Amino acid sequence: MTAQRTLSREVQLAARPQGAPKDSDFSMVERELGQPGAGEVLVRNLYLSVDPYMRGRMNDVKSYTPPFALNQTMTGGAVGEVIASGADGLSVGDLVLHDQGWRTHALLPAQAARKVEVHSGLSPRMYLGILGMPGLTAYAGLLEVASFKPGDVVFVSGAAGAVGSAVGQIARLKGAREVIGSAGSAAKVAHLTNVLGFDAAFNYKDSSVAKQLRQTAPDGIDVYFDNVGGDHLEAALFAFNPFGRAALCGAISQYNAAQPPSGPRNLALAIGKQLTLRGFIVSSYSHLFPQFTKDVSGWLLSGELHHDETVVEGIENTPEAFMGMLDGQNTGKMVIKL
Amino acid sequence: MTAQRTLSREVQLAARPQGAPKDSDFSMVERELGQPGAGEVLVRNLYLSVDPYMRGRMNDVKSYTPPFALNQTMTGGAVGEVIASGADGLSVGDLVLHDQGWRTHALLPAQAARKVEVHSGLSPRMYLGILGMPGLTAYAGLLEVASFKPGDVVFVSGAAGAVGSAVGQIARLKGAREVIGSAGSAAKVAHLTNVLGFDAAFNYKDSSVAKQLRQTAPDGIDVYFDNVGGDHLEAALFAFNPFGRAALCGAISQYNAAQPPSGPRNLALAIGKQLTLRGFIVSSYSHLFPQFTKDVSGWLLSGELHHDETVVEGIENTPEAFMGMLDGQNTGKMVIKL
Repeated sequence: MTAQRTLSREVQLAARPQGAPKDSDFSMVERELGQPGAGEVLVRNLYLSVDPYMRGRMNDVKSYTPPFALNQTMTGGAVGEVIASGADGLSVGDLVLHDQGWRTHALLPAQAARKVEVHSGLSPRMYLGILGMPGLTAYAGLLEVASFKPGDVVFVSGAAGAVGSAVGQIARLKGAREVIGSAGSAAKVAHLTNVLGFDAAFNYKDSSVAKQLRQTAPDGIDVYFDNVGGDHLEAALFAFNPFGRAALCGAISQYNAAQPPSGPRNLALAIGKQLTLRGFIVSSYSHLFPQFTKDVSGWLLSGELHHDETVVEGIENTPEAFMGMLDGQNTGKMVIKL
Repeated sequence: MTAQRTLSREVQLAARPQGAPKDSDFSMVERELGQPGAGEVLVRNLYLSVDPYMRGRMNDVKSYTPPFALNQTMTGGAVGEVIASGADGLSVGDLVLHDQGWRTHALLPAQAARKVEVHSGLSPRMYLGILGMPGLTAYAGLLEVASFKPGDVVFVSGAAGAVGSAVGQIARLKGAREVIGSAGSAAKVAHLTNVLGFDAAFNYKDSSVAKQLRQTAPDGIDVYFDNVGGDHLEAALFAFNPFGRAALCGAISQYNAAQPPSGPRNLALAIGKQLTLRGFIVSSYSHLFPQFTKDVSGWLLSGELHHDETVVEGIENTPEAFMGMLDGQNTGKMVIKL
């Protein structure tokens, strides 16, 4: 057997972004990969994921996951096809989900790859979105973290994003009294109500979030799923009914902030209203995966759950797709097609 | 039977305080009370309670309880002796706990008074403090709201106050790994560690709370019982271990604020650390009263639980006692003896 080499084109982190990331914070490199050893597989990536959490890992600060290393290839969710295998249980042609994204090819231990069976009617890309980490984030955050119950009025920010659009739709399917979303353009707002079945939505850029939420939810809200932080959280605290619950999932409005943001000035409302604010990260809820997969696959196949994607082509456009996602240019899951 | 009249001296709210309350916000009045009708009792108050929550009710804002009315007698916890009764089940000489404080005498429905039996070794005043609302606040907030478990490192602010001193001691008795308190004077700090059995304490006026907490709890905290809000909450967010829990009980640092306070700038830490912040009011936890009474009475009688009181004499000194309590002049429960 000849020592065949595979060329992988990869995106590295060249500099830690100050504020919003820019082109020069990334660099393209080429690397030669060898053949898989025992227990390894060589994967040709088909789809790459860019997600908001990645911005946090670009900073050199202590967090729940270590920061990305400078001058190393970025990592992230990816779906690919096994093109060579040294591992039992994985064969050439198998589709796998793994964490070695931001590159065209990956050589990795088979244990770090999960074989996925793609049901007809579903797309492999869905394992990066509605059937993957963002979908489970929505499912676990709404049902477990925020203790959603039928009859609740649910407000979700970043509602046109991968997580937010799933939150709103799952709330509707699970019997919410009303589902309200905020997003950053008139087109997204129309999409939420016309396509995704939100009862109401508003553009947070139009005027004060607190004012728009009060107008949209005059009887208050019971659950807030927070993807953005900042003035959205403050508005939710004002709008909460007694025993309201917030799932704190992300603070995308603050990820690019160079200065510490101001906190919600009305947090003391949590006392009298007896609110619960709970932060979470999806990896703590992997035990929900079987039920999540069953529920969400069913809704997708029946057409009750709509899955939006914004697809960008080409490994060299991954940084731009990532920066655009942070800026809200996506509707639904942002993926890179190779 | 002659229509005997009883003179009650009472404190009314004369003006809504702007910032810290002052003498002129209160007025003394005298009122003549008649004899109790059917189902009523006439009570001579022995002890009155002043509590932080009363400051909030002096503002004319929507809250979980309606605001105090201007030019009406204030209300609040009181223990008194029945001096005339028109009600079955309550007789002259009985001790009762009720909500018609800030006055020397009260004519009230028997249903609004709870007869208390005072065990030898316990004082009737305790029903305003460690055996009453502040004690239950500590018990419920620590054990239920913050889901305390043995081995937790517990931080409590306002630790020399009625609620805080109970929180720290109950945490110790229930098996905390370490109990840390903050208070506003060197004498209080010494009292916490020397008398109440706190493992460590600091004076929040000495330097930054965040810095002192980091020094006192280098391995982080698991539970924060928040009586004060503001920079204490921010410091706790920095210090929390993963899955930390905050019981939000009060924000005494903000009660006299004329401007909205700044919120915790680091609230987004709640996401990665998977923190739970939960506000509560004690009335939602009255179902715990039997177990609470059993536990706390036992600890008091065995000497394991220390009960501090600051006692001020005379109805006319009630406003001053209240203002002093807001300013931290008390150690333990502030009560007025009539």
